[in-house]
Formats: sequence, C-alpha cells, structure tokens
Amino acid sequence: MKVIVLSSELQQKHLKLIKETAEKIGADVCFAVTEDDIPEDYKDAEILYGFGMRTAARSKQLKWLCVPSAGVEYLFKPGTFANEDCIITNSAGAFGVSIAEHIIMVSLMMMRKMMITFRRSISGEWGDRLPQKSLKDCRITVLGTGDIGCCFARRAKAFEPKKLIGICRSGMCDEAAFDEIIKSDDMDRILPETDLLIMCLPATAETKGILSEGRISMLPSDSYVVNVGRGSAIDEDALADALDENRLAGAALDVFLNEPLPESSRLWTTKNLLITPHVAGNLTIDYTIDKNVEMFCEDLINYANGRSLEHLVDKIKGY
Amino acid sequence: MKVIVLSSELQQKHLKLIKETAEKIGADVCFAVTEDDIPEDYKDAEILYGFGMRTAARSKQLKWLCVPSAGVEYLFKPGTFANEDCIITNSAGAFGVSIAEHIIMVSLMMMRKMMITFRRSISGEWGDRLPQKSLKDCRITVLGTGDIGCCFARRAKAFEPKKLIGICRSGMCDEAAFDEIIKSDDMDRILPETDLLIMCLPATAETKGILSEGRISMLPSDSYVVNVGRGSAIDEDALADALDENRLAGAALDVFLNEPLPESSRLWTTKNLLITPHVAGNLTIDYTIDKNVEMFCEDLINYANGRSLEHLVDKIKGY
Repeated sequence: MKVIVLSSELQQKHLKLIKETAEKIGADVCFAVTEDDIPEDYKDAEILYGFGMRTAARSKQLKWLCVPSAGVEYLFKPGTFANEDCIITNSAGAFGVSIAEHIIMVSLMMMRKMMITFRRSISGEWGDRLPQKSLKDCRITVLGTGDIGCCFARRAKAFEPKKLIGICRSGMCDEAAFDEIIKSDDMDRILPETDLLIMCLPATAETKGILSEGRISMLPSDSYVVNVGRGSAIDEDALADALDENRLAGAALDVFLNEPLPESSRLWTTKNLLITPHVAGNLTIDYTIDKNVEMFCEDLINYANGRSLEHLVDKIKGY
Repeated sequence: MKVIVLSSELQQKHLKLIKETAEKIGADVCFAVTEDDIPEDYKDAEILYGFGMRTAARSKQLKWLCVPSAGVEYLFKPGTFANEDCIITNSAGAFGVSIAEHIIMVSLMMMRKMMITFRRSISGEWGDRLPQKSLKDCRITVLGTGDIGCCFARRAKAFEPKKLIGICRSGMCDEAAFDEIIKSDDMDRILPETDLLIMCLPATAETKGILSEGRISMLPSDSYVVNVGRGSAIDEDALADALDENRLAGAALDVFLNEPLPESSRLWTTKNLLITPHVAGNLTIDYTIDKNVEMFCEDLINYANGRSLEHLVDKIKGY
C-alpha cells in the first residue's frame, strides 16, 4: 500500500508520526512538497494526503484523498477524480480552535471600535474615547454548530453573553455551551433578536445565499456579522449596502465569493467592514497542524483495518 | 445630608437609581456635569460622586469622595483634600469585564498578526498567510489578581491555555480559573516560562517599575506583554529596546507613564507595539456604568446606616 503525503507545512514531528503509523500498517510512504516532486513509482499510490488535485484527476488507482481543509466544495466539480469511487476525508475538527479565536478577536475589534483606534495609533494620534459594546449581555447567534461553532460557543460562554443560540439544519447539537439550539427553518425568528451573528457554514446548495438581502434586513441596525465559513453563504452586495447605509453596525469577513478578493471589489471600501484574507483557519497555528496529522493517522489505521473512516466526507451532504 | 453627583456619562436609569437610593436614606442629591455647575447650596455637601478634584481640594465639609475609576494614585498627592479625614471609595470591580475583553482582544491581535493584516486591508492588499500563535496551550502569567486579573482568567481559561498562573503580593487568591497562584517574590521563577504576560496592577510604590529591564530580559524572545494597569509598572524605555531588538515578540500597552502619550514619544514607532489610548476600562460599556452606579448606591446605604463602606480605598496600601 503506497501513501503520498504532500505538504510544505509539516514539521519533523509530523513526518515522524506519519512514518511510524505507516510502518505499523505496513504501508510505504513518500513525502513531497508539490505534485511535481512525486516519484514515478508512487504515481499509482492508493492514498494521498494533501491538495493533490492533479493526481486525483489523473490516477485511477487513487482510492482515498485526505485534504487538510474543512471545506471540500472544490472537490465536487466534475472531472475532479479519475476514480469516481475515490473516498474523501477532510480535516473538519482541526480548525475550530484557531477559527474560534479569530471570531472572538474580530467580534471584540468591532464592538470595541478597534479599527478606528488602530488607524489613529498608526498615525500617532491619541484620540478620544469611543463608545464600546461588550460580549457580556450580548445576544449571540451561531449559524452552524459543527466543530467551529462549538469551539466558538465554549469560548464565548466565558464572556457571559445574554443568550447564545446555535442554529443547525437538524436542530440537534449536544454542545452544552449553547443556551438553545434551533432548526435552520426557525432562523428568521431569531435574527431580529441578535446582536452578533456568527456564520460558520460549509458551502453547500442549502447554505448558498442563506444570509440573503431579506435576512440582512431582519438584523437590528446595531448588530454585527462575522463570516468564517464560506463566502457563498452571504449576499455580499446586500451586506455591503446594509453596512454603507448604517443598517448594520459592522461585519468581519474572512471568506468571500471570490478569493483573493479582487482589487476592484467594493468590499475593500465598504463602511465598517473588517476584511481578513482567509486566515481564520489554515495550518497557521501548531495545534491545527498537529490535529490535522493526528486525524489522518487515525484514519490510516482505520483504513488498513477495513474499518470505516472517522473523517469521511458525505458526498451527498457535501461536508 | 447633601450628595453631589458629577457626570456627563450617566443615563436616565442611573440618575433614577441614585435618586431613589438618596430618597430611601433621606439625602438630598444634585446632579452636575462639571464642578462649575454645582449649585451654591451644595458647596458644603458631605458626599461627592465623580472626579470632583476642585471640590475636594476646597471643601472642609466633604466627608466621602467616590470616584468612578479603579486606580486612585492621583488622590494621594498632598493638597488633594481640604478635609484630610475624607474617606475615598473607588470603582474597582466595575472595570474587570471591559478590561478582560480588551486583554483577550489585543493578545489575539498580536498572536494572530492582526496588526499586519489590518494594515494590508486598509491599503486594499490581500497578502500572504502569516504564522500565528494560539491561546490554546499558551503559558499565561497574570500579574495582579484583583477584579481585572480574575475576570481575564475566567475568560482565558475557556481558550485552554497550557498554564494560567496568577501572581499577587500575598500569594492568596481564591479564583478557581487560575492553575496556580504565586507570590510576587517568586515572579522571577515564572517569567522565563511565560508566553503571555498580562499586567493589571495598581500604581503603588511597590508596583513602580516592577517590569524592570532585568525582568524584561527574563521573558522568552517569542513572548508577549499586555499592560492595562498603570504605566508606572513598566520601564518603558527598556520595553521599547527589547521590542525594537526582537527580544520580545510584541506588546500591547493601554496605559503609559505620561498620558496622553506625547507626540514625540518613541513608543509610537516602536516595533510590534500596539498602542491604545487608555480605553480598556472607562465608562465605555453599559455594564461598567451600571455596575459603577450600583456600587455607589450600595455604599450610600452603608454610609447612611453607619456601616463600613464596601468599596473603601485603603490609604496605606494605595488601592
């Protein structure tokens, strides 16, 4: 059994863990930085860890692709896999910690007027005090109660919000940090009572444009929106209009319909909009990389033993 | 009994609560925005809430000054009180929530390289991913375990740090969020094992220059410092040197030896230094003002009933 591991971000300890795991199950493993570096005798490998899109499109022998991302919408385009039965695992579960920290950071930055304060400090200006808002007694609604939503909820709870509501398709989630879990169908009831809306949804047919112009108008004019899921979940133009017309207090977007965000995008100059370049997750903190590799190795053992994989992507649901 | 309430920040609900409390104890109360607005027949008032420094310096009748700040070092200068027996209460306990949110925000901003990302976004630049640090598995040391330190610790705990250590004079603090409480005398043992040092100390003779050049050099070169207490606690020049020479990864200062920070200060251009203009606390969020007024009203009843005041400042300790 041959395994290709593609990555420029893994450290020695990660390579070691993968090697040891491969040895345990009697698999051969090769490490490559890009697909160009894959040796000839690994071109028929059964397993690939990493963003090996060219290999997936070419190799009929590839049976399992493990991607170090949570979102996998880019894998559902026709022609992605030469072997249509190739299974996919993702790394949902590895990014929650980093993304939750990002959400807390940008929420506080907006509520505490940090964007204004920071601009002043850059130009050496002390400036007046500005009115601020607090996470304490805040009504927080979290759209998406997967790993990211739950990691955020556990952290947000410590800030003593007035209400912490989780919204998901099934209306079922056993994360105790939420005060209440409601079904996506009941979302419109909660939006008018939301001070801070956190969006952490995968890109699926169901989530496309879920924060529509109509729903944006249901939010209070002093509320804030954070999106760390996928850009497709928001009607970007309607959001920009609402911000420019003071129908929302602020928004922080880490994901966009088009990434990198084009230079010509109106979002760069939209009022009270904090733009970050898709950096909430990614393999940027140690914990995320560690977890990512651990999850792959766990499933490597499952795979070798003919057990079902823990982090399998449901191709119907799309996540 | 006459009570003067000085403030431009109180809302109707606060005035109402103070009025009702004054009625209960049979006191007369007048509200004024500045000391110039105090009516003639209140010049001999027994109680003043607010920054009534001119009144304190002039009135021999003033028996109790309640200030809406936690720090009170400015009240110990000679000549501050015409009546030397005037008691002081402060509002320590009202600011922890707001300041804890500030600490979490600036810590994450530094660790997640947000100052660079934000500068890029201002100029419409998408930019590359940058390495980030996390509060998860971080070794956090909190210098000062009063209301601010404890409020921060309860929030920080939810981020799953590796170690959360509180340092205080007595070595005693019953906040369960801390993993360990140590005495100030043992500080030097902990500094080399600190990734994030949070300083929330009052300005006293003991805390003056407590983060000295020597102690700054004990901190790891990839560690961060946050100060929300008083500027006098840090050797500012030594800190700036350490930052400029990459002997520290970053610092976020909300308080300074001289405020407003002079235009000519080298701190404005010190490397990896995040400057905020003393905005962590203050009467900027609703909770802080509410709590402030509640605490004063509580002690107003204590005072009228001859009980000791809950929020009394110890003139010897200086806080």
